[in-house]
Amino acid sequence: MPRGLPLSEDSIVESIRGFARSAAGLKVGIGDDAALVRPRGAAEYWAITTDLLIEGIDFRLRWIAPESLGHKALASNLSDLAAMGARPRFYTVSLGLTRRTSSRWITRLYRGMVDLGRRAGAELIGGDVSLSPAGIHISITAIGETRNRRYLLRSGGRPDDVVFVTGVLGGSAAGLLLLESGRPPARSAAALAALTAHRNPAPRCETGVWLAQSGLCTAMMDLSDGLSTDLSRLCRASRTGAEIDASRLPLFEASSSWGGDPVGLALHGGEDFELLFTVPPNRVSRLLSRYPHRFPAITPIGRLTAAPSLRVRDGGDSRPWKLEPLGWDHLRPPGGATQKLPVSVPAVRRSARSSRAGRL
Amino acid sequence: MPRGLPLSEDSIVESIRGFARSAAGLKVGIGDDAALVRPRGAAEYWAITTDLLIEGIDFRLRWIAPESLGHKALASNLSDLAAMGARPRFYTVSLGLTRRTSSRWITRLYRGMVDLGRRAGAELIGGDVSLSPAGIHISITAIGETRNRRYLLRSGGRPDDVVFVTGVLGGSAAGLLLLESGRPPARSAAALAALTAHRNPAPRCETGVWLAQSGLCTAMMDLSDGLSTDLSRLCRASRTGAEIDASRLPLFEASSSWGGDPVGLALHGGEDFELLFTVPPNRVSRLLSRYPHRFPAITPIGRLTAAPSLRVRDGGDSRPWKLEPLGWDHLRPPGGATQKLPVSVPAVRRSARSSRAGRL
Repeated sequence: MPRGLPLSEDSIVESIRGFARSAAGLKVGIGDDAALVRPRGAAEYWAITTDLLIEGIDFRLRWIAPESLGHKALASNLSDLAAMGARPRFYTVSLGLTRRTSSRWITRLYRGMVDLGRRAGAELIGGDVSLSPAGIHISITAIGETRNRRYLLRSGGRPDDVVFVTGVLGGSAAGLLLLESGRPPARSAAALAALTAHRNPAPRCETGVWLAQSGLCTAMMDLSDGLSTDLSRLCRASRTGAEIDASRLPLFEASSSWGGDPVGLALHGGEDFELLFTVPPNRVSRLLSRYPHRFPAITPIGRLTAAPSLRVRDGGDSRPWKLEPLGWDHLRPPGGATQKLPVSVPAVRRSARSSRAGRL
Repeated sequence: MPRGLPLSEDSIVESIRGFARSAAGLKVGIGDDAALVRPRGAAEYWAITTDLLIEGIDFRLRWIAPESLGHKALASNLSDLAAMGARPRFYTVSLGLTRRTSSRWITRLYRGMVDLGRRAGAELIGGDVSLSPAGIHISITAIGETRNRRYLLRSGGRPDDVVFVTGVLGGSAAGLLLLESGRPPARSAAALAALTAHRNPAPRCETGVWLAQSGLCTAMMDLSDGLSTDLSRLCRASRTGAEIDASRLPLFEASSSWGGDPVGLALHGGEDFELLFTVPPNRVSRLLSRYPHRFPAITPIGRLTAAPSLRVRDGGDSRPWKLEPLGWDHLRPPGGATQKLPVSVPAVRRSARSSRAGRL
């Protein structure tokens, strides 16, 4: 059971930002879901993002088929492109393989990536392989293209903007909880939905492009590490706080039948790969009337605030409580190596824990 | 001492190529030093390459300072861009860090990357970090830009083309040999040069761009895995063989003073990050007269042949012997985990070994 680094992911990103410098053609550098660059003479910006998955930290081989692992590794990158409003074009793959990796496993991994990539319009264009002494590592770099040079950053939110999410939150964490329980229940539709959300998440490529094109949103990012952690990142970038109405969260309710707390999973469960975005109040009705029916549902879950804290209400006039970023930190995995949630999810909802670092 | 996969790096790359498909804007896909794409409307092609370094396989922390490791990790990517004739522009970094990694070590690693990157014109634009259960992993994706849309591939060589290399071969392997001996000799200039070649290799960025612009070359690649392995790749891509004159190899002669065979190291030692390129016979004198004095020396070392084999002569009219690709395979590291050379380097020169796989 690996314990974490004394450093947090965000603190490392902050220190790396110290190296950032402007450069010709560089529109957005370190710190958003993807970088944006403008090739000389090009009609559009290119969005570039990298994601790393490590065996024993981000996945366990016995819980996921190679096709799904390939799908998921690419999905997390395509989700970052979606969060900028960029459509996927190309990707490269770095693979650290162990002595036990078979040729057939590798082919199945690529099959999963290539199938998702083609549906999303992205082509595999290169990569590298090396032997890894312990555990498989998958690092993907994906490249996307804006449309009409429109894009959205984390930093555009303003106080009073309405906070929206796409889809349902907590489904992936519900699937992980099921796997970790070691006793998958009967193959109910809900259990299958949770496992699919965990293993084969659908990146919101088209939705992200549509939202950026709409001109109605001020900020956007994807939900990869849990709403509490990712919303705190959006707020920090936008220099705002936020107040969330827990009664409006689009929950994966069925998780309660296998011991999950749907609200806790929605707030802190990672890897939903849904989009989090903000809309000024006077544009909300336009957004709701124009938003295409074929896309995943969007739900207003709260507002940005001038006060910098993150707070949650349980609905109506209840007293708000402080939301701690208890989502996933890739450098400080909680408890078990692949456990993406605080061990006692039901208990953290109103937890007094002041920081995750204290637990490690 | 990790043993290798039953698969070779080249066999995996071949199987991945089965997934390759043409796509709008994609000029060159999997299998060369970098992919080439053309952003819509852009004046130039973009070259995109990825390289992965893994602790215990590609480096040992006690043999290299973090600044040098950062430098070297980026250098191997910039060398791939140079091999296409592209000048560096941007890069992203994926880092798998262990529990023992300190904040200071990470900053020093980035310092080494950023210093080299800025000298070469490349800006750090993003990345990802995750905890790694065992060993540090560094995966970099670098993006370069052609000039006047000129570039060179591995596949352009024709029989009778003269084979050239830049710089000196075997210096990096000589440095590794020194480290592996466990007893670094007095700080001679030669020892320092070997250690510098191993730890802080200079990618041939300007030289690669110049060679592509010259219009005099037919094929190019960089020497990352050893001349014997990389030349066999260039020949396979160009559907030729080659005959090398060992007496013309630009050797790192001083390695003999610490037990190295300069010819063996030049033929099979990896990580020289020099350029290997081919020139039709009738353009050689023009190349030699125009080639800038400020660039590293270039040396003709042999010719491509219509017969598909790789052969070496020891000079003049001696009988040629068959050159086996005994360089570095990232999936089948020889002997020790970080040993980039056959254990008995002096013995392999005329080795009868039929394949490296047999040794593992």
